Amino acid sequence: MAKKFVYLFDEGRADMKEILGGKGANLAEMTRAGLPVPPGFTISTEACTAFYNAGQTITADIQQQIDTALAELEKRVGKKLGDPANPLLVSVRSGAVFSMPGMMDTILNLGLNDETVKGLAELTGNPRFAYDCYRRFIQMFSNVVLGVDHYQFEHILDHIKEARGVKQDPDLTAEDWQEAIVRFKELVRKETKADFPEDPLVQLDRAIRAVFLSWNNQRAFVYRRINKIPDDLGTAVNVQMMVFGNMGDDSGTGVAFTRNPSTGEKVLYGEFLINAQGEDVVAGIRTPQPIAALQNVMPEIFEQFKEISTRLESHYRDMQDIEFTVERGKLYMLQTRNGKRTAHAAVKIAVDLVHEGVITKEEAILRVDPDGLDQLLHRRIDPAAKMNVIAKGLPASPGAASGQVVFDADLADKLANEGKKVILVRPETTPEDIHGMVAAQGIVTSRGGMTSHAAVVARGMGKPCICGCESLRIDLRAKQFTIDEYLVKEGDWISIDGGTGRVLLGQVPLIDPILSSEFKQLLDWADEIRKIEVRANADNPEDSLKAREFGAEGIGLCRTEHMFMAVDRVPIVQEMILAETDQERQIALDKLLPMQQADFEGILSAMEGLPVTIRLLDPPLHEFLPNLEELLVEITKLRMQENSDPELIREKENLLRKVRALHEFNPMLGHRGCRLGMTFPEIYAMQVVAIFKATATLREKGIDARPEVMIPLVGHVNELRIMRELVVEKATQVMEETGSSFDFKIGTMIEIPRAALTADEIATEADFFSFGTNDLTQTTFGFSRDDAEGKFLHQYVHHKILPDNPFAVLDQSGVGKLIEMSERLGRGVKPDLKLGICGEHGGEKSSIEFCYKTGLNYVSCSPFRVPIARLAAAQATIKNPQRNK
Amino acid sequence: MAKKFVYLFDEGRADMKEILGGKGANLAEMTRAGLPVPPGFTISTEACTAFYNAGQTITADIQQQIDTALAELEKRVGKKLGDPANPLLVSVRSGAVFSMPGMMDTILNLGLNDETVKGLAELTGNPRFAYDCYRRFIQMFSNVVLGVDHYQFEHILDHIKEARGVKQDPDLTAEDWQEAIVRFKELVRKETKADFPEDPLVQLDRAIRAVFLSWNNQRAFVYRRINKIPDDLGTAVNVQMMVFGNMGDDSGTGVAFTRNPSTGEKVLYGEFLINAQGEDVVAGIRTPQPIAALQNVMPEIFEQFKEISTRLESHYRDMQDIEFTVERGKLYMLQTRNGKRTAHAAVKIAVDLVHEGVITKEEAILRVDPDGLDQLLHRRIDPAAKMNVIAKGLPASPGAASGQVVFDADLADKLANEGKKVILVRPETTPEDIHGMVAAQGIVTSRGGMTSHAAVVARGMGKPCICGCESLRIDLRAKQFTIDEYLVKEGDWISIDGGTGRVLLGQVPLIDPILSSEFKQLLDWADEIRKIEVRANADNPEDSLKAREFGAEGIGLCRTEHMFMAVDRVPIVQEMILAETDQERQIALDKLLPMQQADFEGILSAMEGLPVTIRLLDPPLHEFLPNLEELLVEITKLRMQENSDPELIREKENLLRKVRALHEFNPMLGHRGCRLGMTFPEIYAMQVVAIFKATATLREKGIDARPEVMIPLVGHVNELRIMRELVVEKATQVMEETGSSFDFKIGTMIEIPRAALTADEIATEADFFSFGTNDLTQTTFGFSRDDAEGKFLHQYVHHKILPDNPFAVLDQSGVGKLIEMSERLGRGVKPDLKLGICGEHGGEKSSIEFCYKTGLNYVSCSPFRVPIARLAAAQATIKNPQRNK
Repeated sequence: MAKKFVYLFDEGRADMKEILGGKGANLAEMTRAGLPVPPGFTISTEACTAFYNAGQTITADIQQQIDTALAELEKRVGKKLGDPANPLLVSVRSGAVFSMPGMMDTILNLGLNDETVKGLAELTGNPRFAYDCYRRFIQMFSNVVLGVDHYQFEHILDHIKEARGVKQDPDLTAEDWQEAIVRFKELVRKETKADFPEDPLVQLDRAIRAVFLSWNNQRAFVYRRINKIPDDLGTAVNVQMMVFGNMGDDSGTGVAFTRNPSTGEKVLYGEFLINAQGEDVVAGIRTPQPIAALQNVMPEIFEQFKEISTRLESHYRDMQDIEFTVERGKLYMLQTRNGKRTAHAAVKIAVDLVHEGVITKEEAILRVDPDGLDQLLHRRIDPAAKMNVIAKGLPASPGAASGQVVFDADLADKLANEGKKVILVRPETTPEDIHGMVAAQGIVTSRGGMTSHAAVVARGMGKPCICGCESLRIDLRAKQFTIDEYLVKEGDWISIDGGTGRVLLGQVPLIDPILSSEFKQLLDWADEIRKIEVRANADNPEDSLKAREFGAEGIGLCRTEHMFMAVDRVPIVQEMILAETDQERQIALDKLLPMQQADFEGILSAMEGLPVTIRLLDPPLHEFLPNLEELLVEITKLRMQENSDPELIREKENLLRKVRALHEFNPMLGHRGCRLGMTFPEIYAMQVVAIFKATATLREKGIDARPEVMIPLVGHVNELRIMRELVVEKATQVMEETGSSFDFKIGTMIEIPRAALTADEIATEADFFSFGTNDLTQTTFGFSRDDAEGKFLHQYVHHKILPDNPFAVLDQSGVGKLIEMSERLGRGVKPDLKLGICGEHGGEKSSIEFCYKTGLNYVSCSPFRVPIARLAAAQATIKNPQRNK
Repeated sequence: MAKKFVYLFDEGRADMKEILGGKGANLAEMTRAGLPVPPGFTISTEACTAFYNAGQTITADIQQQIDTALAELEKRVGKKLGDPANPLLVSVRSGAVFSMPGMMDTILNLGLNDETVKGLAELTGNPRFAYDCYRRFIQMFSNVVLGVDHYQFEHILDHIKEARGVKQDPDLTAEDWQEAIVRFKELVRKETKADFPEDPLVQLDRAIRAVFLSWNNQRAFVYRRINKIPDDLGTAVNVQMMVFGNMGDDSGTGVAFTRNPSTGEKVLYGEFLINAQGEDVVAGIRTPQPIAALQNVMPEIFEQFKEISTRLESHYRDMQDIEFTVERGKLYMLQTRNGKRTAHAAVKIAVDLVHEGVITKEEAILRVDPDGLDQLLHRRIDPAAKMNVIAKGLPASPGAASGQVVFDADLADKLANEGKKVILVRPETTPEDIHGMVAAQGIVTSRGGMTSHAAVVARGMGKPCICGCESLRIDLRAKQFTIDEYLVKEGDWISIDGGTGRVLLGQVPLIDPILSSEFKQLLDWADEIRKIEVRANADNPEDSLKAREFGAEGIGLCRTEHMFMAVDRVPIVQEMILAETDQERQIALDKLLPMQQADFEGILSAMEGLPVTIRLLDPPLHEFLPNLEELLVEITKLRMQENSDPELIREKENLLRKVRALHEFNPMLGHRGCRLGMTFPEIYAMQVVAIFKATATLREKGIDARPEVMIPLVGHVNELRIMRELVVEKATQVMEETGSSFDFKIGTMIEIPRAALTADEIATEADFFSFGTNDLTQTTFGFSRDDAEGKFLHQYVHHKILPDNPFAVLDQSGVGKLIEMSERLGRGVKPDLKLGICGEHGGEKSSIEFCYKTGLNYVSCSPFRVPIARLAAAQATIKNPQRNK
């Protein structure tokens, strides 16, 4: 038997997508389900491949199968292609395995010619409709098949409208369309040196070839390259009887969802138009009626449609987005697909479907995109609002806010105390601005990247922030900023969307986060299923409590430097850094000790019974000192002024010398992390004593504090060995002094390549590894995030030189290899080594799946991403039943 | 048979070092060779282990063997321990497997007591000598065995000398020593509550135990930890008859080398003293005579010594450093070892020994330390010169120079043109200083590290340079600098040693490099043997020619940015960078093209017939722009001045804005390398066209130009793929335009971890990989070299947290793992992939051996290190006969 290349709709099935393409398989599935689908047939993707293999020729074998299918179609519908009395009109559409919307070609109303159009006019009693169909067909066919530019037809129509003194298509008459058709054909003859093909069989043949050829047009090719779709799949061709919703008041067309796609409520949701075609709904010239009204207009049709909708939803086991047409009292289903929905609706629908017994919990979990949850957790801009976007910066911390612009932290603080909403706008922020950041609704900076001070602090506060908004020119002296032609002064309102980086002029309505019962239900199911812990990154008791509320099972990263940056501590920290002697330094450290201890008591207490991983001081010390450039300008000014105090100049020069001595060419690769602990062990000693004193104090109160001390930036096992000795020594000392006894763990960040490469050595001194994938990505790629994102990374991602921004989505083939190596080497010498991730990737779904597959024990992310991570972790668990351990 | 723990000297051999220790094996070897060695025996390292295993007890078994050996010794020498008539005196010395100089204990003159000392006095007819020996023994034994502090004995001696009114030991008489002995014994009794042991057998027993125990004293323990010597080896104990060179004019002592250790000349070289002990030679109170003079004083002894020396040299097959003593007309050999020698002598001796048929070429090659060659290739400070070192900076470029201090490049240039020698001293250098650097004898900077502008340029020029000399406080306005209390003004003389980083006050004599015929011979042999190519890093025709002269087989790294930094080009480069439009940029590039073409013609022509690997532009563009800080100060000043031209301010502010826009937080990880090529393809296009036009031009002249285009900083294969397409396109274009046809290669640096981790992907687009181990070390460790070396790396190396400075010696367990991975992954997909290294490690011996073992095809280093690399490569080849391919 010859290979089958052409399938009538009732010969196919949903699972034949590879042969029939997505659309063909779907039409077949509906047809087999007994739904009223306009009949037709699908020419398979294999026929497309055969077409190319035969040198762009439809082989006789395939041609014969097409002819047979067409004959069967004509027989079933009782119409014939080219029959002037009762003409069959068909659509010819592409349908690839993977959806490539708008990339390939479609031809409607095929089968019309000078004869059949008359039959159609007579049959419908609507010549205007018939000639309109015909001229549309000529336009579409000429463009797609014959390559005549679209605008040339529009040109002719404009001429006719001008001559008639009308403006819009609906004002043209049947006669006008007839004239258009004549002139269209003249145009085709002129352009192609041939007559427009009148023979419907020739029309069909050429349309099928055109669809096959469109598989390799430029835009399809580029689309496939971007979306990584193989070039050799080919497209199927669907030939289907045309139906018309514009054949009178017994006809109509509409679209409907089986549930409300905004809220998820279980009720038919959609709209329809009587005596109209699908494109009329889209064009928006007439206002459609809500779908419920169909009950009054066409009660039988409505009941039939409702019944079919229910069947479709049960059949596909998901909310459906359905297109239908009624032709002279007969309902036709044109398309059904899983409907797009808001995150809120997605959650409700998934949970409801479980409760209705349609899907399992696992399926429900897989149905919801974790990324979508973000909008449920943050205030956001009402999508319906009118937006005047004036700039775009880096989306440094999600959420939306409106407020009056202020340019300094003190004023922000003052106005907020007066009950005003403010947005703090600064070139960049420093520790001195913290109180202003606390007071503001949101923060915008013109300099700095995703890891700048503003970004890190704002994310910690869960406050909207846009960084590196370089088009914004701030004039601090004039208290205003300009963006292109816009001038914004202090007190003017702006709005920001920290999730997209958009800055908007004026105030816009905001939508508060929605935390429905279904949302909580879904996350509870996720917790039942997932086999990887979720912790949070939090630096203070408030964030810790928030994290716990969001379901965090511990703190994966508590950064101690943010405690150093509190406005009342910076002077003491500076005193410590600028100390000339060990003694002076110790005096400053002794002042910091009780403050740090109080910090840790708060956090450990908030996380009672759960582990808290505390990272010792990480950033280079110069981050706590005055800015070198500002100091330089200040000194220059002092020198130029005649009446400057020479003592002050000397003092400032002295400070400059120290700042310069600590200045680094590449701070990211400088004197930071455990390198500080190695050269200034007294600083780490103070922190460790504070951690253990806090633990002892809490234990005494019966609070189960569980500290884990984390040493950052280890590159050689000797660093960890020496730091471990220090931690153990201080723990012993505190236990002896307090008479308390407690457990604790000591581990390290794996955040530079050498640590991963020598993980077997490092594991001997570590109870746990925590992958600091922010820094690990920077060092593995040799990118500084602050520099890359503003300068070339955007271009890299845009042009697909890199598949994703590696700071957002873990680079599995590079950075991931180091993580796998660490797991293998580390567990090779210490099988119970605990592994976690605390970079920002810990809250990103594909990265979480990678972590799960690689055998990590936990992921840790910012508090607001904990729910996302819980869901993603459950998805990873479901998708990888056979993970390595 | 019981296990043997004690060996008479004639029972051992040189290859029994593990059992007998180094000293014991050597004494045994000399004894077996029939040399007149004072007889004795060795208690093995295994006895030491047994001693510790038995709870610090000498087992009966071992004690018996000691007794037997002692009896045999007494029999052979005809003296008896404790015999007042003819007393045997012995030394008891430690002797570990690995030399641990000064770490463990030694006791001389053991066997003396109140009785035997009289016998000694009588036998020698020299009571003063006898009592001096005795008091020395008491001092040494009491200190080592009984733990009485040394200073207490010195105190007694001071008292006696004071009482006698004399100042020095030689002024004391036999009676004085007798008094000292009495008082020494009183001291011992008081301190130890016991009498000084008079029984020589007890003395011996306690001395042996003390030596065993000294294996675990604190300093030995620390020494082993630093030098990675296992703690369980134990030490042997050597008991040997004492001989005395101070028994009259028929006695004497001396040291001699079998060849001149400075020049390598084959002639006995050394000195001796009549009637003296070894320590008298060291003390320098009497002036020794040259060894040749021994011929006149003791002609027979001299002949015997000469003959023995010759035998020792043939026996050990190397130049020997020999200690001898003549006791009453009898020659004793006390020690022989391979003599230390200068690099110059090492080369001559090795080559001479081959010519003499003593050793093979391979042995000769292994005998010379490649590191030592460095001093032969550079001018250096005469070691005999008096040096006043006032500061120490980073040894940025080797070689020595003296000159007058100047603080700006223009003046340096001017004075050099007047024939003066100058040293350029700057806070840091920029491209604007190049002419001053060319003019200067050497360069000193107070800021910046081993990869700073000054360091890189100076190394390229082969000019001495010291960087990051932070103790140097430069006052450019006053034209002077201070270091501690020293003030140096413009025009003062200083000297610098770029190999050690030392800055010296004043002018010092310099020694020119020595390139002997033996040196050339040795390198010729190295070339015959080595199986890995040696190339040079050179950026201009002069350096290329120098490299070729030194034996380079190609250029492994030609950095094109140095061409951009030429003083006449910087303005054009700035024009290119600051261009507002593509058109403006192209105009600047068009000006640069012929200049670059000329550069490449020069280099390719100098390296005719050899490959030249040209790296496209690598540094971030802001390196070519004015310094941001300076600009900031300038603008602040302009603003403060009342009569400033507002137009000038605007212009400068505009420039500042651009400099700021290009400014980077971490330039090392910023917009550089192929990231420039990706975002500004026109720059790379210009460079590539220049390379290929140069190639075509030279080919036309019949010159065999062999360019290899190298793309820097690739992290993802897509970068290399796109850059490769650009290079191929331009090559094709140039070939079409010129009608020429030529071969070329396209490869990449592997200098960031991700490139190594994905080397299999990257190899598909590369003809070669060149490991840029400077950057690879920085990114693998997460260190910025410029920051690390000044701030914490020194401490890391000093405290052995890292075994070596990873920028000097390749870190095999971290960075090396990435290199091995690249080799495996790269050759896995492309077996003929060419691999090389062009980081500074390419000139370091252990790194070269690693490269050879890993299967690299070549190493590339600075021209002056090429001879070192040739020798090291030969050594690697000899040491690894079974390398992986």
